[in-house]
Amino acid sequence: MNNLRKGVILLSGGLDSTTVLAIAKSEGYQPYAISFHYGQRHAYELSAAKRIAQQMGVSEHTIVELNLRQFGGSALTDNIDVPKRTNADEIGSEIPITYVPARNTIFLSFALAWAETLGASDIFIGVNVLDYSGYPDCRPEYIEAFEQMANLATKAGVEGTQRTTIHTPLIDMTKAEIVRRGLELGVDYSMTTSCYDPSETGAACGHCDACLLRLKGFAENQIKDPAQYS
Amino acid sequence: MNNLRKGVILLSGGLDSTTVLAIAKSEGYQPYAISFHYGQRHAYELSAAKRIAQQMGVSEHTIVELNLRQFGGSALTDNIDVPKRTNADEIGSEIPITYVPARNTIFLSFALAWAETLGASDIFIGVNVLDYSGYPDCRPEYIEAFEQMANLATKAGVEGTQRTTIHTPLIDMTKAEIVRRGLELGVDYSMTTSCYDPSETGAACGHCDACLLRLKGFAENQIKDPAQYS
Repeated sequence: MNNLRKGVILLSGGLDSTTVLAIAKSEGYQPYAISFHYGQRHAYELSAAKRIAQQMGVSEHTIVELNLRQFGGSALTDNIDVPKRTNADEIGSEIPITYVPARNTIFLSFALAWAETLGASDIFIGVNVLDYSGYPDCRPEYIEAFEQMANLATKAGVEGTQRTTIHTPLIDMTKAEIVRRGLELGVDYSMTTSCYDPSETGAACGHCDACLLRLKGFAENQIKDPAQYS
Repeated sequence: MNNLRKGVILLSGGLDSTTVLAIAKSEGYQPYAISFHYGQRHAYELSAAKRIAQQMGVSEHTIVELNLRQFGGSALTDNIDVPKRTNADEIGSEIPITYVPARNTIFLSFALAWAETLGASDIFIGVNVLDYSGYPDCRPEYIEAFEQMANLATKAGVEGTQRTTIHTPLIDMTKAEIVRRGLELGVDYSMTTSCYDPSETGAACGHCDACLLRLKGFAENQIKDPAQYS
């Protein structure tokens, strides 16, 4: 396909965002990946994002340095214990302790700034409402409101020359459906990391909410998760 | 007044945001100031923000380190010449070269994250539609859309326990009215800096759009601008 449209993809190095990158490519977008070093307790997912960006041939990979730790309040950035369980069915629908205040709003704002500079009007984010119903900034009504705001925030939006779209291809999919779609598109999931609390070598714990959901997604496809577990 | 409500104020060190801080205080808010080190060509306005925060007794002053330079595209962050004029009336209504892509969206997103952590539901920003009609992210419809998005993005918004408000006390004021209001509230404008292109010692150029508007605002109050000009 020639004359590709540029798409900005939020890439965390996890299963979801890697699948989104594969979907954007399959839809004919020229992929620009953006990742964030935001004071995660482990930088392992960032090196996964780098490997994925390279292996999947993105046109450019930008890593934004942020310090969300200075605002505190999450098990993903602070010294708060990540909850461990034995079964994905135990995951509740309350807002989890791993919620980082306004994280997706900050991430999407940077993606918007970059998109505007690139002349891109398509932003892709791997939010998903089924598995993470507890995160306010993963719901369709939030994404819709962000899109509306974005179109009032930018030059192109105001001049009416280009309308920004926030694409959420995974929004209604189960983890099993996401894995299936990614495998169809040839995603190598051994490169991805989902764990909230990996070991020092990057091996997944297998018992945090992210691991349990991921394992369930592979199990429902009768496939072994190729990620490393400790 | 006891039992003050916390208010998060975006403080750049300029005339507008310093006036906003004074207004928030006068309305009984306990002020939390947030500033950004975002790759401005000069860090002079950040030291002004620090002095102002201290002198005006904010409860806490957070400085967020960002690199908006990596996205490029503005005379405020890149090596693009800041336009100089002799008269404020020459300022057009097109989007200026000093526009930084999605800047206010990024700034407000961080303010939102901090507000959520503080348990604050009031955010103050010194946007103004009359003088800077060229910036898309200074218009009331943009602010309204951001507020709507913010109330879908946060725990408190979703749980219905607290509604976030974006306050824009200067939105409809002329520069002369802003100066008048600040002087009534006892603002010491000698601490503030507005210039887009100050000298190495921090003296204002007197000929960029920001200087011209500021000088006009003081002149219309028959008062000499106490800022240092080169």
